[in-house]
Amino acid sequence: LFSAFAIQTQSSQDDAKAKKAMEISEDTLISRIKSAGSHGSALVPWLRLGPGDDAALLTPTPGFQTVLTCDWFLEGTHFLRDKHPADSVGWKCLARAISDIAAMGGRPRCFLLSLALPDRFAALWLDKFLAGLRRAARKFSCPLVGGDTTRQRSILINVAVLGEVRSDGAVLRSGAQAGDLVFVSGKLGQAELGLARLHPKKGRAMPASRDPLLRKHLYPEPRVELGGWLAENQVASAMMDVSDGLSTDLRRLCQASRVGARLVAAKIPTAIDPQNRINSKKIDLLSAALHGGDDYELLFTVPAAQASRVPDTFKGIKLSQIGEVTEARRLVLLDTHGHQNEIASRGWDPFRP
Amino acid sequence: LFSAFAIQTQSSQDDAKAKKAMEISEDTLISRIKSAGSHGSALVPWLRLGPGDDAALLTPTPGFQTVLTCDWFLEGTHFLRDKHPADSVGWKCLARAISDIAAMGGRPRCFLLSLALPDRFAALWLDKFLAGLRRAARKFSCPLVGGDTTRQRSILINVAVLGEVRSDGAVLRSGAQAGDLVFVSGKLGQAELGLARLHPKKGRAMPASRDPLLRKHLYPEPRVELGGWLAENQVASAMMDVSDGLSTDLRRLCQASRVGARLVAAKIPTAIDPQNRINSKKIDLLSAALHGGDDYELLFTVPAAQASRVPDTFKGIKLSQIGEVTEARRLVLLDTHGHQNEIASRGWDPFRP
Repeated sequence: LFSAFAIQTQSSQDDAKAKKAMEISEDTLISRIKSAGSHGSALVPWLRLGPGDDAALLTPTPGFQTVLTCDWFLEGTHFLRDKHPADSVGWKCLARAISDIAAMGGRPRCFLLSLALPDRFAALWLDKFLAGLRRAARKFSCPLVGGDTTRQRSILINVAVLGEVRSDGAVLRSGAQAGDLVFVSGKLGQAELGLARLHPKKGRAMPASRDPLLRKHLYPEPRVELGGWLAENQVASAMMDVSDGLSTDLRRLCQASRVGARLVAAKIPTAIDPQNRINSKKIDLLSAALHGGDDYELLFTVPAAQASRVPDTFKGIKLSQIGEVTEARRLVLLDTHGHQNEIASRGWDPFRP
Repeated sequence: LFSAFAIQTQSSQDDAKAKKAMEISEDTLISRIKSAGSHGSALVPWLRLGPGDDAALLTPTPGFQTVLTCDWFLEGTHFLRDKHPADSVGWKCLARAISDIAAMGGRPRCFLLSLALPDRFAALWLDKFLAGLRRAARKFSCPLVGGDTTRQRSILINVAVLGEVRSDGAVLRSGAQAGDLVFVSGKLGQAELGLARLHPKKGRAMPASRDPLLRKHLYPEPRVELGGWLAENQVASAMMDVSDGLSTDLRRLCQASRVGARLVAAKIPTAIDPQNRINSKKIDLLSAALHGGDDYELLFTVPAAQASRVPDTFKGIKLSQIGEVTEARRLVLLDTHGHQNEIASRGWDPFRP
């Protein structure tokens, strides 16, 4: 864990340049990181030992199962240092791992942060990164309990989240049955449109606070409350989060459940884009909803008999029935002209050329 | 988790070169990784759901606490692709994370593997890496339950291990008291000497099977049984693993316990090196024992009244009393001439220039 590094302070030159790009000493780095995830111990009674020993110690909640997941978040692959605010990198690396816990119907309990930084490093970037991480840790009641630091040419982040779900209450990808209805939370394609706005050919992106699409790309909100409600009330038969695009993720859910699905284009909740164009090019909102990644909404199936229990909105989040599960193991889309077309999976794939 | 990638097979050219450096398709990669950590589910009744969903599901053992840790293992920082056998990289990335669990007195239960590979990649390397990983997973009863894969220029590995320890049975770094005796398992400095043999200026390293020093560097054995015994029998007052060198790690234990220590040079179990020289240069075995990293032995303190309960060897592993805990918060070494010297921490530090 963090303490597994010698503490060695390197004095930095006291000039303006040094303030921007200084060598962060290991003790400064570790103490800054520790403070990023800190909660009062009164708030987390199940945390027996946090960062600083060989490993963290946690007391499991009786009657719950442990949910465990991890996610890479790498400079150049998942974010760009000159395009993505450091605060967003901190928020998102944790939020997306928490989304995997939410997708099982679980609640996050704590996380480990593995961080590799370049030798000479912008202290300001680290401060903002940790501020974003701290905000997410507090928002989702998920304190930092340990991790590892080292150096590397580019910024490498790996986040492991431990969560809990009531025993036998977890909702898997494999539970969908023919006849179940397919639901999705929120609006799809927003993060994809936000990403496009982050890279305008001319001018600067709008501040995230004023642009819901940009905010969705930079500061996604894992649907922890919704996932917990669907699991605890035994409403959903299968569930996963939409991180790589509906067309890719629905295929995974269907493969795990050995079923297919028929979606209705008109029912898919697309983003609302007041401009409806990026770089003067009209964008296809349906295509963004089908194939855009990074939305971190929940995709879930519900037995038809249970469908009336699904509200139109849950704590302000729109829930849309977008189609149904079929015995035929295909993914098809009924378009607005009444034609039925096979859906190709064109979501995010790091290995796609 | 692993399933969070589109499955896309890329045909590789059927020639000799392609066999050596092929583009591994994502489905091949994931299925190969999954098989690396697989155990019969009968062997791991507490594992409810392994790789393939949004997260893994585990049933905690009643009366136990959860132990959680993670470790980077990066090409160029922690291993060299042309020097370290892929099989060793696989073994060691898991073994060193398990060592952190052992150092708390815990038993490993399962692990997550985060792996990033270059675009064009040697399939043979991956096979050997996974073979080493599989051997360690089986040896330490620690199956793979999930992870994440992506691509990057160099090989990036992060391993998170979840273990368990009897409630209130964990041994922390902070429990040492003045008057306690300091013990260490095995021999120190072996891995450091093995590393030096791996990089000879002339000729090739000996096969690890015939060279105990090389074997220690390439295939360290975390002291799970010993750590568990010391914790469960309430013998040790404080414990940690020696991963960055005795001089560095003992300082950490003393800092956590707010004590100091006096070691006796003659009692420190050094490596036995039949050559006693590397590249024609005579090596200082005591210096290697004090400052050499990567041994993954256990460093622990025992109240004087309990010392008779510590056997000379535990399941073939030598246990040596090397000094005692002092109230004075310094680290000193009594040398063979009866002189007492301050010990400088010169162990492994990734941020040291």
